Amino acid sequence: MTADAATPASPTTPALSAATLEAAARIMADCDRLAAISALEDGIERTYLTPEHAAHNQVAAELMTAAGMRTWQDAAGNQRGRLEGSRPGLPALVLASHLDTVPDAGRYDGILGVLLAIETVARLKDRASELPVALEVVAFADEEGTRFGATLLGSRALAGTWEQDWFALEDKDGITMAEAFTRFGLDPARIADAALGPDEVAGYLEVHIEQGPYLEAADRPLGVVTSIAGARRFTLTVLGEARHAGGTPYDRRRDALIGASRAVLDIEQIARERGAIATVGRVQAYPGGVNVVPGHVEMSLDLRAETDELRDAVLEETLGTIRGFCTERGLTLEVEQIHEASAVRCAPHLMDAVRTGIRSVGDGAGGDDAPLELFSRAGHDAMAMAALTDIGMLFVRCADGISHHPDEAVTTEDVAAALDAFEAATLAAAGIR
Amino acid sequence: MTADAATPASPTTPALSAATLEAAARIMADCDRLAAISALEDGIERTYLTPEHAAHNQVAAELMTAAGMRTWQDAAGNQRGRLEGSRPGLPALVLASHLDTVPDAGRYDGILGVLLAIETVARLKDRASELPVALEVVAFADEEGTRFGATLLGSRALAGTWEQDWFALEDKDGITMAEAFTRFGLDPARIADAALGPDEVAGYLEVHIEQGPYLEAADRPLGVVTSIAGARRFTLTVLGEARHAGGTPYDRRRDALIGASRAVLDIEQIARERGAIATVGRVQAYPGGVNVVPGHVEMSLDLRAETDELRDAVLEETLGTIRGFCTERGLTLEVEQIHEASAVRCAPHLMDAVRTGIRSVGDGAGGDDAPLELFSRAGHDAMAMAALTDIGMLFVRCADGISHHPDEAVTTEDVAAALDAFEAATLAAAGIR
Repeated sequence: MTADAATPASPTTPALSAATLEAAARIMADCDRLAAISALEDGIERTYLTPEHAAHNQVAAELMTAAGMRTWQDAAGNQRGRLEGSRPGLPALVLASHLDTVPDAGRYDGILGVLLAIETVARLKDRASELPVALEVVAFADEEGTRFGATLLGSRALAGTWEQDWFALEDKDGITMAEAFTRFGLDPARIADAALGPDEVAGYLEVHIEQGPYLEAADRPLGVVTSIAGARRFTLTVLGEARHAGGTPYDRRRDALIGASRAVLDIEQIARERGAIATVGRVQAYPGGVNVVPGHVEMSLDLRAETDELRDAVLEETLGTIRGFCTERGLTLEVEQIHEASAVRCAPHLMDAVRTGIRSVGDGAGGDDAPLELFSRAGHDAMAMAALTDIGMLFVRCADGISHHPDEAVTTEDVAAALDAFEAATLAAAGIR
Repeated sequence: MTADAATPASPTTPALSAATLEAAARIMADCDRLAAISALEDGIERTYLTPEHAAHNQVAAELMTAAGMRTWQDAAGNQRGRLEGSRPGLPALVLASHLDTVPDAGRYDGILGVLLAIETVARLKDRASELPVALEVVAFADEEGTRFGATLLGSRALAGTWEQDWFALEDKDGITMAEAFTRFGLDPARIADAALGPDEVAGYLEVHIEQGPYLEAADRPLGVVTSIAGARRFTLTVLGEARHAGGTPYDRRRDALIGASRAVLDIEQIARERGAIATVGRVQAYPGGVNVVPGHVEMSLDLRAETDELRDAVLEETLGTIRGFCTERGLTLEVEQIHEASAVRCAPHLMDAVRTGIRSVGDGAGGDDAPLELFSRAGHDAMAMAALTDIGMLFVRCADGISHHPDEAVTTEDVAAALDAFEAATLAAAGIR
């Protein structure tokens, strides 16, 4: 490209109103304020059924009340708020995200979506009489699963897919979830009260930071989520034979770490070629002596793709390749699945509503510049809600794709664009332009 | 080869005398008896300055006394026995190996060499007046370093290369070596009393199981050791960046485990091509979440070769290759050496003595069938003794190269051949045919 070639117009948003920018600045300030409520002296951590959870619920309830909602903490510890529509008792369009965090977290993952949902209701409260649905904001109490391992607890309580076994799960101090419920003032026996019935829901919309770099790379503040990838997770064990490192020549070795190392490289190469995402995050060699050829190696595999079909095809090809190499080396491979979630597709009419929202702020309004569509590589509360109702999601650009890290960052301008877009998406989802 | 082609004569030993076979059977029975003195209910473990150490010293002392030696436990806890030569106070030819074990050990590593040394002296006691040297048998109290981490403790005390810092080392229960000395009835302040002066030693001979498969592969019961490989050990750290597994596409990843996995394969390939032995026995990815791209990986590297020059050349090539790949992937490599031992060459005149011993039993007596020479990939007490005196070693075939494992095995016939050979080697080393 020559220096004087015309640069294509960057599809940035048109001027945002002063009121919108003020609201966005207030939301950013609230994110900072809420980040200070943390179990860590230096860093952010809020987990399920802790004092920080209670403190965040209280702040969320105050904001919901100020936005014109009736509020309550439900039987799973989710903080909820409701604005009735044109008449009481209409099915609710649920606007939600989560308040809990991973350890040493950023300040926007989850909470930004909750604050944008509350602000959206605040903007619409004077139009309640026009609404053919109620609006319910839910601040989910657990999405990350940091304390008890099981994830999406808040949204699964709402969706009615809670599992009784979870009450027996223990945190790192040996406290069961059932005990933690009681200490928090909740009654495990009443968990079903948190669930919404299918007739009580009109749909689900969530706004969330992207947690990836695609919007930034495309110079877009906002994106329409098409689906949420379903991860499958495995423990792979390569079995060889532990031998003395000094005395065992190569042709006598059945070194499990050679098989595992080749597997790590094959996993990356195949997923990359096929457009899936595969990660080996944990690896451990046994017996683990400096002086001993590893007899077996355990490793994790996390595999995601836009569709379950692609993900499972990649898995099959990958395991076949690993097994082939293991056979050459006298090794064997054992595969144990430890988690499976199906990919969840966003509902076409809610994707349309989100597109409408994004177009309303001028991002993607032009012919070829349709709103950017992308699938979510990370899991979200929307996955659990899909068991109950149609879902739609709006993504907001974050810096360098960083998430689950203190460096997580968004701009006030992008939050402002997200606010206008989410309000418009909510109206569109409710059937109002 | 056709079925009726002449098979070359197998270089097995000629008929061994009934007395030699009886002695070998007694040694095998002693190995079994001594294996029962163990810290493990089910398995073999004897470590430094423990009740099992004391019990083994007592048995060794009884056998030494029966063989005609004056016995004492030295200031390091080594059990020693001495047969004077043609006149009292002559420099000693030291015949030795160790009594301690790795955890869950076999029954021949070390102890077989001690029992063969004692039996050799028993055979020579009636010829003491001919000997231009004294014979000293040493049952070293620690070679493996199982309890305190530092290795070759017994032989380093004898060689005068003991390090005072070792007294501060702790075992897994937090007991310092100094405390353990006192509890065992030894005085740390007197450790130097265990050392032999250069004028007091005429040389060092050790017989040991091979702990490798080379003799078995060559169909030879015995072998002459040419040198003992010096290992260098390192902690290699590959540094990348921890990121969310779902949200981070491949071109944004700096996955430390990809670099480490490629390193494991490169390490094997280069060492293999160059005739060295390299082992990665430990590996750990951090932060270790199933769902997180590894930000750094720590791994061990144990590198051995017949000469220090070869070993160090292989190291340089390997680290260069790893660094090249790391650079491609935006990773960096840190290298920390945690152990270095120089390769030790056996003295030509003691290698000749060992060859004489092997030829005396008919293994390698024929023209092309010279005694098989090999270098030791494993460390031995002889390495420490090389700081004091000339060393020579005789290796005995073991089954399938297995050692440091309960399946360690030798045959009575091979032990008988080793006994005759070691007696002849001792006489040759003493200058007597």
